[in-house]
Amino acid sequence: MDNYPLTLRSLFERSQALFPKKEVVSRTSTGIHRYTYADFGRRSKMLSSSLQALGVNPGDRIATFAWNHHWHLEAYFAIPCMEAVLHTVNIRLPAEHIVYILNHAEDRFLFVDETLLPIIEKIQDQLTTIEGYIIMSDKKELPPTSLQPVYLYENMIESGDPHFTYPEYINESAPAGMCYTSATTGHPKGVVYSHRGIYLHSLSIGLADTLALSERDAVLPVVPMFHVNAWGLPFASVWFGSKQVLPGPAPTPDILLRLIADEKVTIAAGVPTVWTAALQAQEELQLDLSSLRAAVCGGSAAPRSLIESYEQRLKVPFFHAYGMTETCPLVTVARLKSYQEEATLDEQYATRATQGLLVPGLEMKIVGLQGEVAWDGKEMGEIWLRGPWVATEYYKDARTAEGFQDGWFHSGDIAVIDQEGFVKLVDRAKDLVKSGGEWISSLDLENALMAHPNVYEACVIGVPHAKWGERPLACVVLKDAALQAGDKKGLLTFIEDKFAKWWIPDDVVFLHEIPRSSVGKFMKRELREQYQTYFTGD
Amino acid sequence: MDNYPLTLRSLFERSQALFPKKEVVSRTSTGIHRYTYADFGRRSKMLSSSLQALGVNPGDRIATFAWNHHWHLEAYFAIPCMEAVLHTVNIRLPAEHIVYILNHAEDRFLFVDETLLPIIEKIQDQLTTIEGYIIMSDKKELPPTSLQPVYLYENMIESGDPHFTYPEYINESAPAGMCYTSATTGHPKGVVYSHRGIYLHSLSIGLADTLALSERDAVLPVVPMFHVNAWGLPFASVWFGSKQVLPGPAPTPDILLRLIADEKVTIAAGVPTVWTAALQAQEELQLDLSSLRAAVCGGSAAPRSLIESYEQRLKVPFFHAYGMTETCPLVTVARLKSYQEEATLDEQYATRATQGLLVPGLEMKIVGLQGEVAWDGKEMGEIWLRGPWVATEYYKDARTAEGFQDGWFHSGDIAVIDQEGFVKLVDRAKDLVKSGGEWISSLDLENALMAHPNVYEACVIGVPHAKWGERPLACVVLKDAALQAGDKKGLLTFIEDKFAKWWIPDDVVFLHEIPRSSVGKFMKRELREQYQTYFTGD
Repeated sequence: MDNYPLTLRSLFERSQALFPKKEVVSRTSTGIHRYTYADFGRRSKMLSSSLQALGVNPGDRIATFAWNHHWHLEAYFAIPCMEAVLHTVNIRLPAEHIVYILNHAEDRFLFVDETLLPIIEKIQDQLTTIEGYIIMSDKKELPPTSLQPVYLYENMIESGDPHFTYPEYINESAPAGMCYTSATTGHPKGVVYSHRGIYLHSLSIGLADTLALSERDAVLPVVPMFHVNAWGLPFASVWFGSKQVLPGPAPTPDILLRLIADEKVTIAAGVPTVWTAALQAQEELQLDLSSLRAAVCGGSAAPRSLIESYEQRLKVPFFHAYGMTETCPLVTVARLKSYQEEATLDEQYATRATQGLLVPGLEMKIVGLQGEVAWDGKEMGEIWLRGPWVATEYYKDARTAEGFQDGWFHSGDIAVIDQEGFVKLVDRAKDLVKSGGEWISSLDLENALMAHPNVYEACVIGVPHAKWGERPLACVVLKDAALQAGDKKGLLTFIEDKFAKWWIPDDVVFLHEIPRSSVGKFMKRELREQYQTYFTGD
Repeated sequence: MDNYPLTLRSLFERSQALFPKKEVVSRTSTGIHRYTYADFGRRSKMLSSSLQALGVNPGDRIATFAWNHHWHLEAYFAIPCMEAVLHTVNIRLPAEHIVYILNHAEDRFLFVDETLLPIIEKIQDQLTTIEGYIIMSDKKELPPTSLQPVYLYENMIESGDPHFTYPEYINESAPAGMCYTSATTGHPKGVVYSHRGIYLHSLSIGLADTLALSERDAVLPVVPMFHVNAWGLPFASVWFGSKQVLPGPAPTPDILLRLIADEKVTIAAGVPTVWTAALQAQEELQLDLSSLRAAVCGGSAAPRSLIESYEQRLKVPFFHAYGMTETCPLVTVARLKSYQEEATLDEQYATRATQGLLVPGLEMKIVGLQGEVAWDGKEMGEIWLRGPWVATEYYKDARTAEGFQDGWFHSGDIAVIDQEGFVKLVDRAKDLVKSGGEWISSLDLENALMAHPNVYEACVIGVPHAKWGERPLACVVLKDAALQAGDKKGLLTFIEDKFAKWWIPDDVVFLHEIPRSSVGKFMKRELREQYQTYFTGD
């Protein structure tokens, strides 16, 4: 039995055999696109065939730069099932990171959404390995673009073979996908997902005790397909024959809510800012969300009040989950154990506001200064993980040495764990700012600020923000005390070209000094406490 | 990620970390025994430690000859987690098969229930490799026995180390368990289960679309732990932290129903005869079975009438499943696809009376005389299977050559498959009635006959016939012995609308009982021999 490889072919073929009638709904720039899994399968094969004609070989990295839609779903299977590697690139990264990622992965082709062309056009001169661009669009003709050579997806696959066959035997340890995670300092780090890793992760999210993903579901991944495989939902949905609802380019809360109501979505997954915004929008829209059996929230910690609002005001069950790029991503889900339902509602919400219980299959340690922490809900430690969908290295990256030690992934997340095994994040070891479900490197911002001739020191912290969860606040010490009523706008303008717009701090405060620890490190914790209500005004 | 092995250690350790308070309820000869997963874990480690002291090494086969109880559950983990092989032996086999199995597997030690001692005592002189017997009993002193050398389980583990540690790395392809399946002719055939196979099978039965086994469940495996690992339920239950209710020696329908009611069992699994008998018993007992969310039925095909009775009369959801020793065992589960719920109730029951849809992970072909059959619900073929929990050989057995070809397990089961992919067994290859060059499904005829209100059981066999080669003969047990001189014509008239004319049995014989095998299956071979000349009159 053990020579039967665990590969994405199994997932794909089951959808074709058992669920050809089930539907994939995809929002595009021009409207709602609908087709069946039979269509999806036929077109995926045509795509693989076309890529083969372009010279794509097993092991080649093929990048996507795209929102959540049916073209992206086809690429999710067409690329790995032909033994190439699906490399999803985060469209929200600063240009220099995108350049780094595409070059470092040595991607041979790049799929790009028509609406995202300008980003790629600006950096194409710096891309050293891309041999061609494939535009995802429902237009019949190539849009004007400076990219070269360029192909229109729909035209390209027309000549593809709808009966293309995938190899029966693929090494289960072969790379199927990869994704870069933005590092605290320096370049993004690449994580490679094997066929086996994705296969097992997909099983794990179908378990009754985790997300219970099922054929009965209509699945809406708000979480982008360019970010940790949209938490693995598209893979598992194809396997189990779930209806998929892909929300397309830049979906607003209104769009998401209408999709849920119109398509009778049963499970949707997104970051806390998405759910916060959707809650607000629903107050006005008052749509019928009764189909929704699970609002899944991850990416950063959701406040308990958000969970309560969904369950009490909207009657939508809300599930906290936790994971990261290095873990495929699912690590924990906050579902009560059966006997915990005898606790008070207050205790239940307290438990459900944690990151939850480790899912079957993974192993975890929480390691503090004195070794593994007590399960007392108080002692803090770093989350260490290992398991069949946990990375064991960064792709061609010396930082593997610090992130992975003795077979354990050192997550950098600081947590406590209670007596029942529920994990609660309390901090990020390196104080990343989490804004809108994305990470902002405080250190990168600090370095950029400190390059300004008038800046003596800069420390960036995450400060609570009503809409975005957190926004960066720059705490700056100027070189010349005479400038103390400093030029905030000038400072931010100075760095704005170096980062995505949303990386730029919302404000600057000028200090006489940054508090430092005994070993000379910034004591960000202290600053965060001081500026706790800076943006909310409470 | 792929160097992390898939082993039973993961299952065991998760139960210890997250579910130490959850309960295992075990019926013994003397009453109900209760303890927690913490107790289970401690005692399993003591058992491993004791076995190590006895000289048990990695790879050694250790046999069990026992009912479903907590001692057996401890052996289920203590043996494979120390890298030995759990060899469960079917207590219902004829003595000569038990001797063959123990000798062929070269088992070093044998765990045996006190109540089953007489069976082993009678054959001990023929056992060539057993070095010691360990008696599972709650007695404090060794019961009188001729077995030598002999240990009392409870005494033996007392000196075991409750902090025994299992190796962190076990090769996932190493054997964890084995089970022999009774062959139609000749010796039983051994199937070895790897750690990886059991791990993946356990995940598969936790999926929302299969059995959805969960922490919330109280699981009652009526199916014996000596038969295909009680369908894998004990392994998955430990992993997911489900409460377990183990029904102990020779449970009667009354005992099972009382366990369901008393322990608030949510899912129970057994063969059709168990469910048929329980249905009758419940008519009298009228217990509260409202906790039961799933009655799972496999081992042989359940008549549609049984499914309807459970759902309509008892309000207990009833699920048909299919598998066998060679497949760990789960292959299919009959759950409707979501859109099939729009069909009429009649159509729904018809679909749910099939064996169901292939579970995620396995691959299947149904191969007739002209290659793969059409998905039309009509064309018959043999089920071929492969996948991560499907065997690829029989243990040291030349019959591997016929059972496994080109990487596919040839199941010997004849089935049709409908447009939606629902598999329906129509017969065992050897039980098909071959009449006039066509195949007649004995199973279809049996199901139709069993729907008759006076019929308790029906078994249809092919009997040699001068003109047609074979013709079907119906062997029927009536519900009321007073009807014994039954109405043959009425019975045949009852089914004549459901089949082509040439399918209708040529005659009916009334019996007091149908002969059954050790695992409760009809022994058609015996009936065929008995009625060999029924139509030819030789």
